[in-house]
Amino acid sequence: MKIDLNSDLGESLGAWRMGDDAAMLDIVSSANVACGFHAGDAAGILSTLKAAQARGVTVGAHVAYPDLAGFGRRAMDVASADLVADVIYQIGALQGLATAAGTTVRYVKPHGALYNTIAQDKRQAQDVITAIRAIDPSLVLVALAGSPLVQWARDAGLRVVSEAFADRAYTPQGALVSRRDKGAVLHDAEQIAKRMVRLVQEGVIEAIDGSTVHIEADSICVHGDSPGAVAIARELRTRFVQEGITIASFAG
Amino acid sequence: MKIDLNSDLGESLGAWRMGDDAAMLDIVSSANVACGFHAGDAAGILSTLKAAQARGVTVGAHVAYPDLAGFGRRAMDVASADLVADVIYQIGALQGLATAAGTTVRYVKPHGALYNTIAQDKRQAQDVITAIRAIDPSLVLVALAGSPLVQWARDAGLRVVSEAFADRAYTPQGALVSRRDKGAVLHDAEQIAKRMVRLVQEGVIEAIDGSTVHIEADSICVHGDSPGAVAIARELRTRFVQEGITIASFAG
Amino acid sequence: MKIDLNSDLGESLGAWRMGDDAAMLDIVSSANVACGFHAGDAAGILSTLKAAQARGVTVGAHVAYPDLAGFGRRAMDVASADLVADVIYQIGALQGLATAAGTTVRYVKPHGALYNTIAQDKRQAQDVITAIRAIDPSLVLVALAGSPLVQWARDAGLRVVSEAFADRAYTPQGALVSRRDKGAVLHDAEQIAKRMVRLVQEGVIEAIDGSTVHIEADSICVHGDSPGAVAIARELRTRFVQEGITIASFAG
Amino acid sequence: MKIDLNSDLGESLGAWRMGDDAAMLDIVSSANVACGFHAGDAAGILSTLKAAQARGVTVGAHVAYPDLAGFGRRAMDVASADLVADVIYQIGALQGLATAAGTTVRYVKPHGALYNTIAQDKRQAQDVITAIRAIDPSLVLVALAGSPLVQWARDAGLRVVSEAFADRAYTPQGALVSRRDKGAVLHDAEQIAKRMVRLVQEGVIEAIDGSTVHIEADSICVHGDSPGAVAIARELRTRFVQEGITIASFAG
Repeated sequence: MKIDLNSDLGESLGAWRMGDDAAMLDIVSSANVACGFHAGDAAGILSTLKAAQARGVTVGAHVAYPDLAGFGRRAMDVASADLVADVIYQIGALQGLATAAGTTVRYVKPHGALYNTIAQDKRQAQDVITAIRAIDPSLVLVALAGSPLVQWARDAGLRVVSEAFADRAYTPQGALVSRRDKGAVLHDAEQIAKRMVRLVQEGVIEAIDGSTVHIEADSICVHGDSPGAVAIARELRTRFVQEGITIASFAG
Repeated sequence: MKIDLNSDLGESLGAWRMGDDAAMLDIVSSANVACGFHAGDAAGILSTLKAAQARGVTVGAHVAYPDLAGFGRRAMDVASADLVADVIYQIGALQGLATAAGTTVRYVKPHGALYNTIAQDKRQAQDVITAIRAIDPSLVLVALAGSPLVQWARDAGLRVVSEAFADRAYTPQGALVSRRDKGAVLHDAEQIAKRMVRLVQEGVIEAIDGSTVHIEADSICVHGDSPGAVAIARELRTRFVQEGITIASFAG
Repeated sequence: MKIDLNSDLGESLGAWRMGDDAAMLDIVSSANVACGFHAGDAAGILSTLKAAQARGVTVGAHVAYPDLAGFGRRAMDVASADLVADVIYQIGALQGLATAAGTTVRYVKPHGALYNTIAQDKRQAQDVITAIRAIDPSLVLVALAGSPLVQWARDAGLRVVSEAFADRAYTPQGALVSRRDKGAVLHDAEQIAKRMVRLVQEGVIEAIDGSTVHIEADSICVHGDSPGAVAIARELRTRFVQEGITIASFAG
Repeated sequence: MKIDLNSDLGESLGAWRMGDDAAMLDIVSSANVACGFHAGDAAGILSTLKAAQARGVTVGAHVAYPDLAGFGRRAMDVASADLVADVIYQIGALQGLATAAGTTVRYVKPHGALYNTIAQDKRQAQDVITAIRAIDPSLVLVALAGSPLVQWARDAGLRVVSEAFADRAYTPQGALVSRRDKGAVLHDAEQIAKRMVRLVQEGVIEAIDGSTVHIEADSICVHGDSPGAVAIARELRTRFVQEGITIASFAG
């Protein structure tokens, strides 16, 4: 029994702090590190990479739309030539900083609106896939479990890791319940831990209607952007350890 | 007899065009490619890198202060942690795009205010040197001929290439005449070509006061930001070829 | 017989030039001046405003999404709180610079993707209307002729000016032919001038299928982003003068 | 006995929070509101302006160099044409948002490196003065007490308010002790309150060497960027009230 825990890190920007990277690096096995397009300045990113290296946490590129003001959460109709090059640029920048930190970028996890868009939109998905293949085809793509993107990327020859979200409710079809709907986000650490243990052990999760749905998940995303979120992530890790589930990067 | 010709390329930004990269890539042996901080968007940079690769032109990272509005020409008092990381970030981003273009970043030439500052300012110079060594110590640094930076970088173990400017007047001490002074910039293609041929053949240049000054130069910078500048660069190349001077990258 | 001619100006950015503002200010009666979000730096905008003031050309705020890299041409899903405030911010900034230039912002013309989106999308349209009413309800809104936006803005109490495009083909329903379709953009100055004279004199235009369609247009947009475009605009002005049509701003 | 208390507000940026604007608006009489160049997004600025309006706190423009990554704290050699226009742009943008919030911009307080530079550098000082006069000569300039800027601005016809810093040590000459020196920043709320009460009542402050120095101060700057800073500011307000000192804006 083995699972990867990933979290978004390196999201501070100059004088602005975000998240508790030190705390999260003691919890997760994979760090999705901001690349400067939705968050992160080079010095802060480098610092996070060094901390990840010191703790043996695997590093991935958290690529995004160019939108600091919107934190990369706003859908943008970016042309293919731009999207391909923007993704390569971000991965390359992170690779450079990772080299300086004594570590290596192992995977790519698109962020925010780009993550959601390419889960369903084939044109932008192909752009991201093209970018990854152009800079390093051995990079793993982290994709929303059950989304068409998983197969598109595999068809293109990429290794794909499917991801579940610890604090999100699922539909009976295995999709995420929209954040606009009631009950979409879970806040009870105990409940979250139980659900994720079951997901790892049985490959299923209880959907919002009480039915049971199968989710293929090699990695679980936890958040660290508030003290409460860190506590939930810590509880999840503790429970996994108690259950004999190994927390380790897929890229290990 | 051999010399490198370098020029600043990849400086368009989105809808804004700058320079004639195609024309200049037929003239120079080294392309200083913008990295997005003073100029250049990822798609345009990638396009320039592909064109450089197709013509066998060597590629360098034209790193700069983060200042699109000022085109990197404004002195900025950037702290060391930021400057080191910003330079690594830019080199890494360009390396990523270069990989996608089938080429490799061979050197670093700081741009504008950063170039001028580190020629004399030891703190910022050491930051740039630290950055280069952290990401790839085999990268060559292109530095102002005769500046203290040349020795600082060599002392740190970097390979340094000294650079002269084709269209600039020199003081009797071998420094550039300030742009604010009369006669600082030369416009006569014939005169420029003659001066540069003499520089390559004899290692000297006529200073603004008529005296002769020795300049150590392994590379000559030419501009391509106007049709007139392109014509001067083309004339220079033609003259070198006539004189039997080989135009080839130092990074060969 | 009277018509307004408007054009996008002030779109240079730092070291990057765009368009020939001086030439266009001799042609148009209204200048849509960039506000820094899709194009324009403060010094360049101020310079354009002074030139407009000197020629008696009316000034409007060419507000846009925050997207320099994409020149404001990329659809963005901006939340209402952000869109309202971003539009106010841009209008205010332009008002400040206009005061310094001795002129006044009289109208608002959204740019690029924002223009196209609010022509049809009621949520974003209401955000722009809310912004205009919050900063100055006497500002005129320039909107795509025949679009739902015209009525939405009038219902909200704004004065609206409908706009036609000199170099665009129209559908039999009075909509613009998509740029992706053949024949969408016209290049023949003579043909363009004839069509626009007919539009002013008869209120109709020949659609792409040869039928005749009524277009309500108080202003005609001309471009100045290439020498060819400037020539077309100049020809149009000449023809209007010959036909006795007065070129004057709607904001009088 | 009357004094103004001012603080830097509106410095959040998109997803990044900074400071406790609500708490500080209950303490100060003047709010230096970020204008988007060193901090602040339009929606956050608008929200802060509305809160200031609701509490009757006077609003000023906290103009800065264009440097989000460096929070406006890095010296930049900005040309006069750019600096003048950048300052006008920022004041105008804030005026626009202030209008929407039902309030008015009454003063200008430059931020960070711009504040420090124009306290001594006449060229950049004149640029800021030119900008203020161009957009609204009735705007008050808040300047470092005892700096040459105070007289330069008065000579140009501006009303100037001199400012002291509650948590900073002073030299016997009345200058701020450099942040690099020991004891430059005070942390004891009780000590700070006593010093500021004496400053208001007697016009003097104890310098770092124990001598007494006269400081002309119409406004005192307090910080709100940490819970500790807010507590110090609150203690200062309490003490002033106890001493019968009225806290009111100079622009009142």
